[in-house]
Amino acid sequence: MSHPSRVADAGEAVGFDELGLAARNHGMPLELMREDVTPLGAHYLLTHYDIPAVDAATWRLEVNGLVRTPRSLSLEDLRARSVTTSTVTMECAGNGRARLLPRPVSQPWLHEAVGTMSWTGTPLRPILEEAGLSEEVADLVFTGADHGVERGVEQDYARSLRVEEAMRADVLLVWGCNGVDLPPQHGFPLRLLVPGWYGMASVKWLRRIEAVSSRFDGYQMRAYSLRQHIDDEGEALTRIAPRALVVPPGFPDFMSRRRVLRPGPCLLEGRAWSGWGEVTTVEVTVDGGGTWHRAQLDPPVDRWAWRRFTFPWDVTGEGSYAVSARATDATRRTQPAEQPWNRGGFANTCVQRLDVTVIA
Amino acid sequence: MSHPSRVADAGEAVGFDELGLAARNHGMPLELMREDVTPLGAHYLLTHYDIPAVDAATWRLEVNGLVRTPRSLSLEDLRARSVTTSTVTMECAGNGRARLLPRPVSQPWLHEAVGTMSWTGTPLRPILEEAGLSEEVADLVFTGADHGVERGVEQDYARSLRVEEAMRADVLLVWGCNGVDLPPQHGFPLRLLVPGWYGMASVKWLRRIEAVSSRFDGYQMRAYSLRQHIDDEGEALTRIAPRALVVPPGFPDFMSRRRVLRPGPCLLEGRAWSGWGEVTTVEVTVDGGGTWHRAQLDPPVDRWAWRRFTFPWDVTGEGSYAVSARATDATRRTQPAEQPWNRGGFANTCVQRLDVTVIA
Repeated sequence: MSHPSRVADAGEAVGFDELGLAARNHGMPLELMREDVTPLGAHYLLTHYDIPAVDAATWRLEVNGLVRTPRSLSLEDLRARSVTTSTVTMECAGNGRARLLPRPVSQPWLHEAVGTMSWTGTPLRPILEEAGLSEEVADLVFTGADHGVERGVEQDYARSLRVEEAMRADVLLVWGCNGVDLPPQHGFPLRLLVPGWYGMASVKWLRRIEAVSSRFDGYQMRAYSLRQHIDDEGEALTRIAPRALVVPPGFPDFMSRRRVLRPGPCLLEGRAWSGWGEVTTVEVTVDGGGTWHRAQLDPPVDRWAWRRFTFPWDVTGEGSYAVSARATDATRRTQPAEQPWNRGGFANTCVQRLDVTVIA
Repeated sequence: MSHPSRVADAGEAVGFDELGLAARNHGMPLELMREDVTPLGAHYLLTHYDIPAVDAATWRLEVNGLVRTPRSLSLEDLRARSVTTSTVTMECAGNGRARLLPRPVSQPWLHEAVGTMSWTGTPLRPILEEAGLSEEVADLVFTGADHGVERGVEQDYARSLRVEEAMRADVLLVWGCNGVDLPPQHGFPLRLLVPGWYGMASVKWLRRIEAVSSRFDGYQMRAYSLRQHIDDEGEALTRIAPRALVVPPGFPDFMSRRRVLRPGPCLLEGRAWSGWGEVTTVEVTVDGGGTWHRAQLDPPVDRWAWRRFTFPWDVTGEGSYAVSARATDATRRTQPAEQPWNRGGFANTCVQRLDVTVIA
């Protein structure tokens, strides 16, 4: 019934299992990058199992394991604490997966698995301090209410953070987004928010935080790793690699999504982000990489949010154009010209290519 | 660049164009059918072109054509009118398309292109009465702000209703859903709502209503038709054919979405709807159609909203089960055992099949 992960055969097209995931989960329509904050319902969404039904009235967050004072917190307890709102760009580690060759068979993301919301919650650190972590604690394990079987392993979704990461001042427990309570599909009533990291770290439907003395080696820690072969130890995914995406200019063809444009001035705009450091440069090309132009960068929307970039394109002649952008961050990480392959299909930040036809 | 619609070759799997649509548009995760009203962001979404950016402050709804008093209404004008809220189930006419053989190449829906929201707006009829339709008016043409090219035809999305349909008391102009302003992706600032009809009729980003004397023959009228061959005149799609869907029981396998269940009592539940008449019967099978059982029906949530149904399943033995439901409405329309094929892939209401594995 459940099989190990696999890689598509040469020439094997998207299957009904991948389509079944694509029909449930969804990306962000790229034209909505014109907004600093992604409208509710348009942020990308990846749910491993089912969206659980949680009764907020009886729900508790348990903080236990190697702590001096185990805690059991209601939503009311959490809301009574110090409240913080942060605008954070989140991206799925598998964004770009469907473009890898050969294609790892999983949620078949193209480019759209990203979004930026304004999240409201309370910092995690004081809660851990009040619980009192024992000195031997290595990891904090965050467990959600979502339950399923994956590649043969029955599990509640669980991910860990090392103590120093969990104690970052900007790691939050959030109950709201864009001014409303979390919708069920985004983790109602509470989720973790780890700014700068791929979305797998921001555990939804959070119900337990357990302090443990060894490195947590749960299924989702191994699954979200860069590896060439299924038996490789792998390199754990953490922070979001830099990426720039352009708002598709002009208007689309329904089926191919190819863009149509008429001659004249066209302000290309888009968004760029990185979990490693501030995006410092975005370059834009309209001729498929023949020439790159430096785009203008707006200030970041917030510390961990994307930056808007613009490039005025003077569209003169009819014909075909290939529009792309690439981002570089303060750590000098940038987007590759050729994407290194990995078996899980993670962190594929190969540049987006928008095919544009200019007509009279 | 733009091609006529086509049907996939025998054995041709889902292509990148179909995947590109699946990544933008999305269905409703079926477990959310446990809610009477689909949470914001989880209702199905189909956008033909781009989600347009509309400035609500300068936006106007023009009512013109063959009317005695053309009107130009602001959002404020509309909100000052009589306000109505209706809970309405909406479904995409293409729901089920990807399961047809051969597969029409378009948005590759499986079963999830449905949702029920609580819509707030004002009745259309008094606005048409105030404008004063001329006697020769045959159709009202509703045009949105979304613009694109489809199968070679550049267009603003536009659909018509015959006068008698547009004058139905329950046809609304809506600016809100689930208690908030329409999100951009659902038609901000205003959309039409035609209860009981497939979603293509409920034009989003509405900006003009034009009264015309002949039958409107725009692109989207021809596109949304049942036909065998591309040159057939076709039968226009209107009301939603009956369908029942079961909330997948137990928990899922991540990749296959196959369901896993343990022995014991299991209350199967789901939703059934029809745009032709009230759903009167829902039958459930757990053995792939060998035996059908009558489900219990809750009252409809609202006149045009789905009905919840339940069936207590006593899960006794390990093994494989195939769970389905089928709905019949007051007009005796029901779901077919074998789906008649049509070239656009519309109104495929062939019963859903949930494969369930019972383990100890």
